[in-house]
Amino acid sequence: MSKYKIAVIVGSLRKDSFNLKLANAIEKLAPSEFTFQQVQIDDLPLYNQDDDIKQAESVKRLKNEIKDAQGLLFVTPEYNRSIPGVLKNAIDNASRPYGQNAWAGKPAGVLGASIGVIGTAMAQQHLRNVLAFLDVPTLAQPEAFIHAKDGLFDESGNIGADSKQFLQSWMDRYVAWVKKHTV
Amino acid sequence: MSKYKIAVIVGSLRKDSFNLKLANAIEKLAPSEFTFQQVQIDDLPLYNQDDDIKQAESVKRLKNEIKDAQGLLFVTPEYNRSIPGVLKNAIDNASRPYGQNAWAGKPAGVLGASIGVIGTAMAQQHLRNVLAFLDVPTLAQPEAFIHAKDGLFDESGNIGADSKQFLQSWMDRYVAWVKKHTV
Amino acid sequence: MSKYKIAVIVGSLRKDSFNLKLANAIEKLAPSEFTFQQVQIDDLPLYNQDDDIKQAESVKRLKNEIKDAQGLLFVTPEYNRSIPGVLKNAIDNASRPYGQNAWAGKPAGVLGASIGVIGTAMAQQHLRNVLAFLDVPTLAQPEAFIHAKDGLFDESGNIGADSKQFLQSWMDRYVAWVKKHTV
Amino acid sequence: MSKYKIAVIVGSLRKDSFNLKLANAIEKLAPSEFTFQQVQIDDLPLYNQDDDIKQAESVKRLKNEIKDAQGLLFVTPEYNRSIPGVLKNAIDNASRPYGQNAWAGKPAGVLGASIGVIGTAMAQQHLRNVLAFLDVPTLAQPEAFIHAKDGLFDESGNIGADSKQFLQSWMDRYVAWVKKHTV
Repeated sequence: MSKYKIAVIVGSLRKDSFNLKLANAIEKLAPSEFTFQQVQIDDLPLYNQDDDIKQAESVKRLKNEIKDAQGLLFVTPEYNRSIPGVLKNAIDNASRPYGQNAWAGKPAGVLGASIGVIGTAMAQQHLRNVLAFLDVPTLAQPEAFIHAKDGLFDESGNIGADSKQFLQSWMDRYVAWVKKHTV
Repeated sequence: MSKYKIAVIVGSLRKDSFNLKLANAIEKLAPSEFTFQQVQIDDLPLYNQDDDIKQAESVKRLKNEIKDAQGLLFVTPEYNRSIPGVLKNAIDNASRPYGQNAWAGKPAGVLGASIGVIGTAMAQQHLRNVLAFLDVPTLAQPEAFIHAKDGLFDESGNIGADSKQFLQSWMDRYVAWVKKHTV
Repeated sequence: MSKYKIAVIVGSLRKDSFNLKLANAIEKLAPSEFTFQQVQIDDLPLYNQDDDIKQAESVKRLKNEIKDAQGLLFVTPEYNRSIPGVLKNAIDNASRPYGQNAWAGKPAGVLGASIGVIGTAMAQQHLRNVLAFLDVPTLAQPEAFIHAKDGLFDESGNIGADSKQFLQSWMDRYVAWVKKHTV
Repeated sequence: MSKYKIAVIVGSLRKDSFNLKLANAIEKLAPSEFTFQQVQIDDLPLYNQDDDIKQAESVKRLKNEIKDAQGLLFVTPEYNRSIPGVLKNAIDNASRPYGQNAWAGKPAGVLGASIGVIGTAMAQQHLRNVLAFLDVPTLAQPEAFIHAKDGLFDESGNIGADSKQFLQSWMDRYVAWVKKHTV
């Protein structure tokens, strides 16, 4: 039975997103007591503080999914050397209104895949700054700047042989981190 | 006659936003050869790379407004110690598709008002990182971390006496910066 | 008896440093099972990778003090919107040679005092980025951007009445964080 | 005759530093009206505000070299995902005392070489934040995250064929940037 529900937030809306594929594939490296559910962020309104008193249904849904989870997994590309606006908008929506930050206290991990060699390092730095402010204990090492190259996934969409050892060790640390921070 | 058109990007959608008021007020400190036009960002789609081949009308409009301008003025709050998602989403939309970044080469200034004393410093750092990547020469000093307190604006919505000297000196430097970087 | 030894790293060498005073004062808010020892960083060499094979005695001393500690406490000013060079130099020295990073795994907290209102926020962001890389689990909230104003300390150098409640709550969270991350 | 003197600041003290080699090699891509002088930073004291009233001779020397230059060129590795402490210490020393920041107004470029693929991107982001505060107009694009691999230099220590086109275009933009910002 699942004891640890993980809310997965994918930072790209692209249908064939490498990060979406990575999110789908990495879940299979977790033990059976962990289940993963991707949250929807493409129907959220652009955050407007005037809406704090009447948050949209899509925002309430997101906040409930976050609150129900024992942990968070961010899998995101880098846009213009920072967090994608679409991901930051989801974070902003679920952090409000003041005093009702849904993210607080949930242990998190951060992964990112990109076709460039820099590999989402700067998006992840900015994201870590934001997560610290939101009181989200975030796994430090190993850093996962994944190069989206041939062989990252096998024909079935699973993690390919070359990357499997690294990503399994990442998942093992993540699992331990979530357990440590779950009351 | 106006020789320098400035596209103003306000990072908050709130109706009574301090930053919107600041954007409205600071324009009056510029010489007459400068005109300011606020661009609309609340009707942009959440950026999705799949849309690069058929950008929405609102995105085309934004990109045209940026291209028509001689300079940029960002006036933004800080959300969760970084750039508001709504502003980052506008930046992402107008930076794409690859090779058609509308922001490139436009001289910029960054202002931010907040009710907290930290005053948007970290949003501005992340924004400066993004602007450097987008090839936007950005005015360095004076930093403008504006504390949105009583007296910032007078009864007519103009900059109040306490802040006028600082913001006038900021505008003077901004004007010189735009002129230097306009071919 | 002390079960938790905390290595305290003060980022300023100034004799009357507010951060040194803050480091001295905040220790008194900890329970008796915690002891604090300030490490010396003013006699470290400027880091040079060529010295990795023959690290200076002062570097070995620092690394031993870090290894002996159960937790880390950084108390630092902000220099030029980032980590003081003197502090970064200490971090660099004790992180090397490759594979012998003394900081790894030690739970940490970050405090900073400044006379300006921005209050070390940006130094702390950069420091958090560095600590994540060094595999240091760092307390997220509450953020401690301390304004070094009259009354921060009382006549005996203890935390003054105005700041005591906040800094006590900070210490309580820090103590719990160190305990959680100590095997 | 040289009209533009460039002060070059190398962020590594290692004798065989890739960044030192890069600094030596890239100078040759500049036009003859540009001359480059590397400044010494390995004999600077660890910055201490108490010394502001009696700065060391090495600090005075550095400040004079900066003041005499028309432009700045930073060539630096990344240490622990940020600016090397030794480089930040040089920046801190020459920025003080308050009101006597030697860096202000000097146009700058930033280069970095590393053996890892991430390639100094995060050190450069932090450095750009610091330079903005110091009122240093810094060239935005092209970003130069140089991968220190075989063939970067030829047998004479010049830039190798593979990297020459990119680094020549970088230098051309840098030269134009310095000229634009020199009164």
